[in-house]
Amino acid sequence: MTRPNPDIRWLFEPRSIAVIGASHDADKIGHKMLQNIITSGYPGRIYPINPKGGEILNHQVFKEIGAVPGEIDLVVTVVPGKYVFDAVRAAAAKEAKFNLIISSGFSEVGNSEEERRIVSFARENGMRILGPNIFGLYSAKAPVDITFGPGGIVPGQVAIITQSGALGLAMIGKTAAEHIGISAMVSVGNKADLNEADLIDYLVKDENTRSILMYVEGVRDGARMIETLKKATALKPVVVIKSGRSQRGAAAAASHTGSLAGSDEVFAAVMRQAGVLRAESIKEGFNLCRFLSRTGIPNGPNAVIVTNGGGIGVLATDACEKHGVALLDDLQRLQEVFGPVTPGFGSTKNPIDLTGGATDREYEGALAAALENDAIHVVIALYCETAMFDVDKLSPLISSTHERYEKAGKPVIFSAFGGGSIDDNIARLAEEQIPVFDDVYEAVACVGGLYKHYRHRITPPLPAEEIEMDRPAIDEIVRGARADGRTFLLADEAQKLMRIVGVPMPQSKVAHNLEEAVAIAEEIHYPVVMKVVSRDILHKSDAGGVALDLEDRNEVIDAYQAIMRNARAAVPTARITGIEVAEMIQKGLELIVGARQDPGFGPIVMFGLGGIYVEVLKDISFRAVPLNRAEILSMMAEIRAYPLLRGVRGEDPKDIDKVVDAILRIASVIRQVETITDIEINPLVAYEQGQGARAVDARILLAKV
Amino acid sequence: MTRPNPDIRWLFEPRSIAVIGASHDADKIGHKMLQNIITSGYPGRIYPINPKGGEILNHQVFKEIGAVPGEIDLVVTVVPGKYVFDAVRAAAAKEAKFNLIISSGFSEVGNSEEERRIVSFARENGMRILGPNIFGLYSAKAPVDITFGPGGIVPGQVAIITQSGALGLAMIGKTAAEHIGISAMVSVGNKADLNEADLIDYLVKDENTRSILMYVEGVRDGARMIETLKKATALKPVVVIKSGRSQRGAAAAASHTGSLAGSDEVFAAVMRQAGVLRAESIKEGFNLCRFLSRTGIPNGPNAVIVTNGGGIGVLATDACEKHGVALLDDLQRLQEVFGPVTPGFGSTKNPIDLTGGATDREYEGALAAALENDAIHVVIALYCETAMFDVDKLSPLISSTHERYEKAGKPVIFSAFGGGSIDDNIARLAEEQIPVFDDVYEAVACVGGLYKHYRHRITPPLPAEEIEMDRPAIDEIVRGARADGRTFLLADEAQKLMRIVGVPMPQSKVAHNLEEAVAIAEEIHYPVVMKVVSRDILHKSDAGGVALDLEDRNEVIDAYQAIMRNARAAVPTARITGIEVAEMIQKGLELIVGARQDPGFGPIVMFGLGGIYVEVLKDISFRAVPLNRAEILSMMAEIRAYPLLRGVRGEDPKDIDKVVDAILRIASVIRQVETITDIEINPLVAYEQGQGARAVDARILLAKV
Repeated sequence: MTRPNPDIRWLFEPRSIAVIGASHDADKIGHKMLQNIITSGYPGRIYPINPKGGEILNHQVFKEIGAVPGEIDLVVTVVPGKYVFDAVRAAAAKEAKFNLIISSGFSEVGNSEEERRIVSFARENGMRILGPNIFGLYSAKAPVDITFGPGGIVPGQVAIITQSGALGLAMIGKTAAEHIGISAMVSVGNKADLNEADLIDYLVKDENTRSILMYVEGVRDGARMIETLKKATALKPVVVIKSGRSQRGAAAAASHTGSLAGSDEVFAAVMRQAGVLRAESIKEGFNLCRFLSRTGIPNGPNAVIVTNGGGIGVLATDACEKHGVALLDDLQRLQEVFGPVTPGFGSTKNPIDLTGGATDREYEGALAAALENDAIHVVIALYCETAMFDVDKLSPLISSTHERYEKAGKPVIFSAFGGGSIDDNIARLAEEQIPVFDDVYEAVACVGGLYKHYRHRITPPLPAEEIEMDRPAIDEIVRGARADGRTFLLADEAQKLMRIVGVPMPQSKVAHNLEEAVAIAEEIHYPVVMKVVSRDILHKSDAGGVALDLEDRNEVIDAYQAIMRNARAAVPTARITGIEVAEMIQKGLELIVGARQDPGFGPIVMFGLGGIYVEVLKDISFRAVPLNRAEILSMMAEIRAYPLLRGVRGEDPKDIDKVVDAILRIASVIRQVETITDIEINPLVAYEQGQGARAVDARILLAKV
Repeated sequence: MTRPNPDIRWLFEPRSIAVIGASHDADKIGHKMLQNIITSGYPGRIYPINPKGGEILNHQVFKEIGAVPGEIDLVVTVVPGKYVFDAVRAAAAKEAKFNLIISSGFSEVGNSEEERRIVSFARENGMRILGPNIFGLYSAKAPVDITFGPGGIVPGQVAIITQSGALGLAMIGKTAAEHIGISAMVSVGNKADLNEADLIDYLVKDENTRSILMYVEGVRDGARMIETLKKATALKPVVVIKSGRSQRGAAAAASHTGSLAGSDEVFAAVMRQAGVLRAESIKEGFNLCRFLSRTGIPNGPNAVIVTNGGGIGVLATDACEKHGVALLDDLQRLQEVFGPVTPGFGSTKNPIDLTGGATDREYEGALAAALENDAIHVVIALYCETAMFDVDKLSPLISSTHERYEKAGKPVIFSAFGGGSIDDNIARLAEEQIPVFDDVYEAVACVGGLYKHYRHRITPPLPAEEIEMDRPAIDEIVRGARADGRTFLLADEAQKLMRIVGVPMPQSKVAHNLEEAVAIAEEIHYPVVMKVVSRDILHKSDAGGVALDLEDRNEVIDAYQAIMRNARAAVPTARITGIEVAEMIQKGLELIVGARQDPGFGPIVMFGLGGIYVEVLKDISFRAVPLNRAEILSMMAEIRAYPLLRGVRGEDPKDIDKVVDAILRIASVIRQVETITDIEINPLVAYEQGQGARAVDARILLAKV
């Protein structure tokens, strides 16, 4: 009789909270947490649990959780590690829905077994675990601060999920100091049960949350995470800070795809695919989230820079190019809009340079003009301290402009550069949660993030595609290899599997007589190659059993006879099954295509050009599976050498569709056939459009049993 | 009778200043400047000049500069543009040494002629001009603030040179607000006479200046700038912020080298070559300079991260990898040094993780241990707000640690992350000009800058190298082409020029009879190609006048006879001079090597791999000329495909020395022969080590007369 999973809502909006390990000692975490719950204005019922009983902070203490009169949505467990299991059992008996296990001493110090025991007991009893090894959770919706942090969290619209406890605690203070409004902050710790994906499921629907920031050290159940993130980024921006990017020398990998799949390249590609923004530092993550939580989506691609300083205007232009922000370049329209509000020596080209002589009225006028024009979709407002501009008017001007833009749904970002009074203005605006940057690069980087999100949002999501395949036939090949004690397929097994899947290998058939050989050759089209097929002849070339580049019927006839004669002469006792007639692989563009089971993200695919492009230039790209043809195409277009596929120096374009198709097919195998861990086609030779592609060699590895 | 150039010292340390255009009106720039000079505590003599006479700010006004009793080192000109020339004439008559022309209305609005007239008059009279179109100059040495900025500049050790006036003025306020100490701040404006190089000549010697920040929009006299910067960076760090990087579609260029030399790539390469650090934003520039002005050069490459938070430790590790900061990885030594001071659950691997449980005493202990050990060359001290660490002790701890490290000459950098009280600590330390970052990435980026500077400093500077060449012979070729009305050389002219310079072209000689043909072929070594030489046969191939891939004596004899026979048959009246016997170019690695006169930096060279590497992948690198073999090698090593020259996939390394030599030779031509603007060898075929390289085709362009 297992209880169903509780609704994730009760984790963020608990109606009652029990603290197992609530302490009378004000120095203890079990006291601090209770205090934060109370002082954060939590309106629900609070049940401190402590065998000593009594009262803590004016709340009646229950000696055991079973003695609590009402239902409990959320339990906080703050007892030493060795007592956690018993506490969890008691909470489960009380049918508590969620359990925040603050206690440490589990998998983070190698004690994974106890952690697993706790989680499986809880799950069997319908209770979900957050943690262990966490600092807790804050939710503005409740509102409640169930952490042992410093308190004082400013409610707002940024949700933060952090895997690092210490960093998360320090973020509480830092966000408060910088007036970054928080809708939720969750410590996920060891992620023994609930992980980021579960939390995002809630945060995506939470109308308080307008942007989500994640600090991630390692990924668990990456496939589900991708799926959740894809859904989330269709509605609101998600920013991730990933640490531990420089992990090199991980496990020696068994294939190219493996060794090239340095975890950070894969992480970066998968996040891009899921529409997630990547921040390199905490500061960058904060900047992005505070801006994105106060702005809507632009109505189009064109940004305008309004500045009262030429130098910072040029710096912003550079930054726009770097961050992929398009600047409106319709000079006539710019003149129409800004001509009437730009002083004499100014420029109405983009950047709109009002010059250092601009007053606050002129500055405000230009921003008002930009707001009204529909061809302008985002405004980057730069201010440089001058004597002409009354600095006391700066923060009211920004505040009212920001409000008007917000109402009109047009994004605007501000950057102000100057002395102490400018910084005071910025600080005043920060209190209103209006982000003003003191550096144009930081401001433009945020607009770049907004546009990345915008481009993702306007790209219609296409369903994942997958190829159907003859599973029994594939399983038989795998079974055969395993029966042989192998964790890889032989060349002919791999070739057979590729044919089943529909990846074009060189055509080939075995002829049993001369007439058949000619018929096969004509069917395949010349030129062909021929090889003797005999178990008794190991070194076919040495035995004169191979003939290449046969261009017509006569050459096939001659070669057939020569091969038979040579083979019999070389190994007189050989039993000759026949002669294989195969397509001769023409020169084309050599590609490398791989698929593998990534330890973090599950099935992924890889693409690059063969040879030195992959070995020396590391010019490769990745995507997570499942995916569709459009995503495969975007993966291919990501490599630097992509123009070679499109055709350069007068060459015709290559058959890109057929390459996409081959990748989709191996992606389908890696997703459907769990026993296959790695597939690598090297090379996949691509020909001109309409001429297809051929997989010359395929390496396939199997999971160890 | 021209006066000699005045010593640049009197610009920064003037003994007397005259302000032409000093105003009685407190709202005017001519008043504000005088006020700043006075209130900045300038100890020298001050002479306000104004035809109205009287007194301004308690200083006697002179009606004309000629009436000033003593010598004048520095004149400030604040009159309207049309009166500037007359003012300059008067100042020159008074034998003033330097003239700061604040006034605008010159080349920045197209009025270059008047600007040139002013400068040449001044120069002829031994007076140097700063500007026009500037906000002035601040010098801590004098001390004096000769600007119309807000005042309040904090004296210190960072020198700033800015081409943007508005930005520079705002920097005055910003640096003061951030307690960035300034040794000098100079506005260069139109750079009509004095430019960055002149100022750096002084700042390099100025013991107050420990780092130099330049904001540059465009380069003038780049060759001299490089030379000056190379000298400067050998002694102190120089940081440059370059704006206007996204200038695309500049002049359509006449060669590959030209079209690929997008100004920013060249600028970046040249700054790297000169050892200059590049900052992308003003904030990054400020961060670098404030750190570098308070730290010495490390004694070695090994950094150690000390942290009380695991998460920020990992983020810092990532940042170290990105910014090229090596982390000490001698685990035994790390254990020896930090074992005694690291708490139980901590880690003595690098990062040294003292854990969130660390007290201020433990933190201080670890930093003291790191200071004492000679194997540790730089310390990155990270602090994450925790309950265990008494936050009131943070700024005294950082202050005393910083002092001890400074005394010992070991660089240390701090980053602190947390709530408002942490930010207060950071602000308090900033007042002592101790930079503490609130983001680990910014801190590590500064250490990365320090190590770039360090690596530059420990690389022994080698003299520039140049090849001597037969100038008269080259000039004759150029003259011939010009006489023909061409601005390019014909193939055989270019070939001849390359031979003169010593760039290996395919060997070739003209044989006048069969015996000579055989002798030449044996001298060159087989295989050879042969071509008829005759003015009367234009299409040699069509006339059967060409034979390729001749592998031995007999083939040469047959070919000679066949060519003569064919040629005579094709054009019976042809006068045949002989038959050219030439080396046949073998397959090798195709490189592209170029040299050109860059409009900003003068002579530059370019290197890349031929074909798609340069066309599709844009995998190229640049250097300014003059340079030496080591610099050429480092330019070559910069391209991504460089491993192909070192030999990959079992191939032998290529003859890198010979490629270096070829580049040095064309670099010498472009520097010595002003009439040649572009040289491009495409391809230069490189063979295995010891086998040399061959220039297959050389394009040479000439300056338009």
